[in-house]
Amino acid sequence: MMSPAAPVSALPVEDPYLERVREHVRALPESGIVEVMNYGRDRPGMIPLWAGEGDVPTPPFICEAAAAALHAGETFYTWQRGLPELRAAIARYMSALYGVPETPERYFVTGSGMQAIHVAVALVAGAGDEVLIPSPTWPNAAAAAQKAGARPVYVPFNYGPEGFTLDHDRLAAAVTPATRAIFLNTPANPTGFVATRDDLKAVLSLARRHGLWIIADEIYGRFYYGEEGRAPSFHDIMDEEDHILFVQTFSKNWAMTGWRIGWLEAHPRLGQIIENLIQYSTSGVAAFMQRGAIAALEQGEPFVAEQIARARRGRDLVGDALLATGRVDLVKPPGAFYLFFGIEGRRDVRSLGLTLVDEANVGLAPGTAFGLGGDGFMRLCFARGDAQLAEASRRLVVWLERTRPAGSDAA
Amino acid sequence: MMSPAAPVSALPVEDPYLERVREHVRALPESGIVEVMNYGRDRPGMIPLWAGEGDVPTPPFICEAAAAALHAGETFYTWQRGLPELRAAIARYMSALYGVPETPERYFVTGSGMQAIHVAVALVAGAGDEVLIPSPTWPNAAAAAQKAGARPVYVPFNYGPEGFTLDHDRLAAAVTPATRAIFLNTPANPTGFVATRDDLKAVLSLARRHGLWIIADEIYGRFYYGEEGRAPSFHDIMDEEDHILFVQTFSKNWAMTGWRIGWLEAHPRLGQIIENLIQYSTSGVAAFMQRGAIAALEQGEPFVAEQIARARRGRDLVGDALLATGRVDLVKPPGAFYLFFGIEGRRDVRSLGLTLVDEANVGLAPGTAFGLGGDGFMRLCFARGDAQLAEASRRLVVWLERTRPAGSDAA
Repeated sequence: MMSPAAPVSALPVEDPYLERVREHVRALPESGIVEVMNYGRDRPGMIPLWAGEGDVPTPPFICEAAAAALHAGETFYTWQRGLPELRAAIARYMSALYGVPETPERYFVTGSGMQAIHVAVALVAGAGDEVLIPSPTWPNAAAAAQKAGARPVYVPFNYGPEGFTLDHDRLAAAVTPATRAIFLNTPANPTGFVATRDDLKAVLSLARRHGLWIIADEIYGRFYYGEEGRAPSFHDIMDEEDHILFVQTFSKNWAMTGWRIGWLEAHPRLGQIIENLIQYSTSGVAAFMQRGAIAALEQGEPFVAEQIARARRGRDLVGDALLATGRVDLVKPPGAFYLFFGIEGRRDVRSLGLTLVDEANVGLAPGTAFGLGGDGFMRLCFARGDAQLAEASRRLVVWLERTRPAGSDAA
Repeated sequence: MMSPAAPVSALPVEDPYLERVREHVRALPESGIVEVMNYGRDRPGMIPLWAGEGDVPTPPFICEAAAAALHAGETFYTWQRGLPELRAAIARYMSALYGVPETPERYFVTGSGMQAIHVAVALVAGAGDEVLIPSPTWPNAAAAAQKAGARPVYVPFNYGPEGFTLDHDRLAAAVTPATRAIFLNTPANPTGFVATRDDLKAVLSLARRHGLWIIADEIYGRFYYGEEGRAPSFHDIMDEEDHILFVQTFSKNWAMTGWRIGWLEAHPRLGQIIENLIQYSTSGVAAFMQRGAIAALEQGEPFVAEQIARARRGRDLVGDALLATGRVDLVKPPGAFYLFFGIEGRRDVRSLGLTLVDEANVGLAPGTAFGLGGDGFMRLCFARGDAQLAEASRRLVVWLERTRPAGSDAA
């Protein structure tokens, strides 16, 4: 598990036209999820549980706010840090959720959570630098570090009967003089890992001790299946002067994956630098989209509550059905909206993804797409409607029974 | 004119919180246009000619196409390279305009022309590399190179009675072993320079000789005031295997500045690498926006024609009025939609921008925002309505007359 991860795909370097492309850009991995999506996306009746998005389009009240702004002529250049009204709305939202002061100048609107990561990485790491990333993990953070010229260093989670847990000693041992940041996603994609308050304290203490940044990806913070209304957050334990950058997105809570809008939360003293990074990468986010985002924050609570309740039902529906076969290695996750599990006798998950398209007409993402420690697992997104998830469960259970090795019994 | 340009603004490094920010990111310049915009944007009656955008909102047929897609639920993740329908529409448009083959796989949809530049620079230049940029020039290309860790090298245009012209010897002399690319904007912002076919041949020959990339920014290609319907283009002279990346935007032709949508044109063999760079910086462009872009390409020709005719009128209206005062150093430009001119006795253009806000209630951008060779000039955008431009001209002429130095006579 500690051996270095092989690149998901290598691009041909024998093509002389590509010789003039920068080497570490040429070496960026192709998304390991896209391969199976391209393989299966046109199959009739396919149930696609491979991507990190639900099956519900953006609610009408959000679309209408954006369309109204569009028709009203909000089509000119706008504030590079985001509309003041949106930054104020984010500040109110965050204050209500985390009990933090309402500080609009901490929030910078970005053209996706991905861009928030891109800006955060650009701030802190480049050639010769290292970024620690507990893994398996969503691959784009590591790729963003690689794109910036830095080296992503995967630090495997522990895996056992409790699911995935953070190994504090292993994380501390991975720090070198080249380390600049720890990227922590909690609740985590794909593992469902949720950092406890003690985990967060340990990470913050490590970062303080070594002068590291923390890039905190808490985008699934509300998809939490414990007793409290949300997962623990660095907001609960940090001081104002800590070096923490939070990346956020409108994608998951408000079913706005396709919009490409998110935000970066940072110390206000970084404001001009962040504005410059936005200016010189995309030059801002459409004002009419931002009007939709304001509507999401101000009128979206009933929708978000229903999305979370639905995900909780989905987790139990699919998780319990798979567990009942006795053929899966699965711990129902405390957060996010993925099952991440192994199937008995099927270690080659990259080909298993294609096989399940062919034989079960269900699309799952192979764990190999999620870096070191992901091999042997499949990812299934359960942020979908009950009926579709029931049918997907039925197909997977039938396939698991049909392919049961001789001598293996149901649990 | 050959002395190195001073940074437009330096950020405080004495702030200990900022010490952990990467040095070349901390040193990114603040936009020199934003300073005067922030100074003047709330003045009653201000006529803002400082930005590179018109005064017409996006036409309704484009907004309606986007709104319809939004209401139809096109709010999910989409193709990282752009909707196939949009790539096909771009290919048809480019084929009609430049007589090139219809090749959709050459076109990659980006979240702004700025992102196309960001991706192009990421492909070709990083730490230790140099990018040649004729200047004065729109500052964002140089800043994108700097953001990538590369060094932008300004190569001044010649300036004389013919306006701005390219000095081929000076460009050739600027090539070093570290040079990776030439960034050429034609028609150019802010100078109005338009490369002749011979200029383009010389640049291409230089690039071929030294194994350099060309990043071609021809976004103002249709805002051309010569006899032909468009400015000369690298499309007219290049071979398929040349290393040319074209950056493009929907902003100017279709009055979509605020949308943040553009495209990168590149050799199809770069496809997977470009897809990866998009995936790991913004992960694509909203599908509903792309529907608006398709409408722009397919139904936008009458609108574009009117925009160009209006700009041509604006150029003459303001240009002739200023020339008549005898107090400006101005050559009416053959392309783009800016006047770039000096005012007698006023070399400190940064403070002149603020003065004109205070005393003429007209917003111009100082030439200092446009790199080496821009000092001493002001930029005025004439892509606006006749009545507003007439009033802006009147105010500027009154101010010029009022501030005429003793002993200076009208022409």
